[in-house]
Amino acid sequence: MAGSIGSTLMATPRVLAFDVFGTVVDWRSGIARDSSRFLAEISRSDIDSATFADNWRKRYQPAMAEVRDSRRPFVILDVLHREMLEGVLSEYGINPRAIEPDLLVDWTRAWHRLEPWPDAVVGLTRLKMRYPIVTLSNGNIALMLDVARHGGLPWDAILGAEVTRAYKPAAEAYLGTAAILDVSPADLCLVAAHHSDLAAARASGLLTAFVNRPMEYGGAEAPDRDQRQEWEWRADGLTDLADQLGCH
Amino acid sequence: MAGSIGSTLMATPRVLAFDVFGTVVDWRSGIARDSSRFLAEISRSDIDSATFADNWRKRYQPAMAEVRDSRRPFVILDVLHREMLEGVLSEYGINPRAIEPDLLVDWTRAWHRLEPWPDAVVGLTRLKMRYPIVTLSNGNIALMLDVARHGGLPWDAILGAEVTRAYKPAAEAYLGTAAILDVSPADLCLVAAHHSDLAAARASGLLTAFVNRPMEYGGAEAPDRDQRQEWEWRADGLTDLADQLGCH
Repeated sequence: MAGSIGSTLMATPRVLAFDVFGTVVDWRSGIARDSSRFLAEISRSDIDSATFADNWRKRYQPAMAEVRDSRRPFVILDVLHREMLEGVLSEYGINPRAIEPDLLVDWTRAWHRLEPWPDAVVGLTRLKMRYPIVTLSNGNIALMLDVARHGGLPWDAILGAEVTRAYKPAAEAYLGTAAILDVSPADLCLVAAHHSDLAAARASGLLTAFVNRPMEYGGAEAPDRDQRQEWEWRADGLTDLADQLGCH
Repeated sequence: MAGSIGSTLMATPRVLAFDVFGTVVDWRSGIARDSSRFLAEISRSDIDSATFADNWRKRYQPAMAEVRDSRRPFVILDVLHREMLEGVLSEYGINPRAIEPDLLVDWTRAWHRLEPWPDAVVGLTRLKMRYPIVTLSNGNIALMLDVARHGGLPWDAILGAEVTRAYKPAAEAYLGTAAILDVSPADLCLVAAHHSDLAAARASGLLTAFVNRPMEYGGAEAPDRDQRQEWEWRADGLTDLADQLGCH
C-alpha cells in the first residue's frame, strides 16, 4: 500500500473529480483488443494491435492542443478520436477513405467500450458513500456515459471538457469544474494516474491524489514521469484510495 | 394504472430524460417544510408556508423567461431561486436585506434538499437497467447533484439548462440535450409531469411520457392543464412507467 503524505493534517476534499482514461479504465487493452478485430477485417493482422493502440493514443495531446491553443474551435473528443484514427491508419500506409464508413465509426467507438481497472467499481462505490464522485475527463458526455454504463461506474455527475468547453491541462477545465460544483478549487480533489494532469490541477489550487497504474502503457514508463511531485495522496488503486480517505 | 397509447407500435426510446421538480421530487412539501422553519426564525410564523412555497414557485417561469427572451445573460437556477426568494419576501412586506445573509443562503438551498416522490428511486433504478437515465431539468448541476445525493437518485448523467445554456421550454434545451447524447431527437423521451414541458419536447421531435403527479400543487389543478395532449406514454408514477417500458 502506498502512503499518504501527512494526510491527517490536510483538509478533507468536498468533492472527488476523476480523470478516466488510464485512471479508472484501461484504454490500452481495450483499444488493442478492438483494433485487433478491425485490423483483421481490413486484412492487416500483421500490425501489432497494442502498438497500434499506443500510436493512436500518441495523437491525443497534439489533437487537443489545437483546441487549447485556439487553432480550431472546441470539438468533442469523439470527433478528435476519429481524426486521430484516420491519422494513425495513414501512418501505417492505410487509406482511411478505402475503409467502410460504418467500420470506422465502430472502430472509433472502441473508446466507448473500455473496461474498468479491476479495483475501479468497488473503489468508486466506497468513495461515493462519503464523497460526490464526478468525472473530470477530456472525454465528451456521450462517451463517458457509454463507458460508465459499460463498466458499471457509479458517477454522481459527468463533467469535464464538454461542460467547461476546455481541455485539460488548461486551467479553465479545473476551475470551471469547481465553479459548476459550487466549491472552491481547494475543496476539489483531482484523482488521476498522470503527473501532468495533477500538476496542472495543483497550479489551479486543487487537491491532488495520484493513482499508480503501472500497466497503463503495458509496463513501459509513463511519458510524464519527470513531472512527478509529492501529491496529497498517492494510492495503488481506488480501493487503496478509499482506505486512505476513510471510506471503509 | 394509466394506459399507454399504442405503445406496442412505437419505437423504443434509446435514452430517457427526466424533468425533476414535480416529476421526480416533491418541491412543494420540501419548500413548505424548510420555509416554515425559516419563517419561524424571522418571527413570521403567521405566514402559511405552503402558500409561501406556491408563491415562490410562481416566480419560476417569469424569472427564466428573462433569460429565454435574452433580456439577461444565462444565469444558473440557484441565482434565480435566490432572487425569487427576495421577491416573494418583499411581496409579504419583509425586507430581505434585513435578514441574516447566511439564512437567505440556507433558505435558497431548500431546493437542494427536496425529497423524491415515494416511487422515484425504485422506478428510476428499474428504468436504468434498460435505459440510460439523465436529467433534463432547468436546475443547475450543483443543485441537481445535491438533490440526487440527498434522495439517492441514480442518474447516469446530469444534463439540462446549465449544459445547454438554455431553459426549457426553449427548443435548444431539448435539441441540445439530444445532440450531447449523440442520439436523434426521436430517440430521446422526455419524462415529465407537465404538459407544457412535454408539448415543447414534442415540438422538437422528442418522444413524450407524462407522469401524473396530482399532489404537485397540493391537490390544486395544474396551471398547464389546457396544454394536455395524448402523449406516447402516460403513467401514474415511475414504477408504472417502468412496467409500461418493460423494465421488470
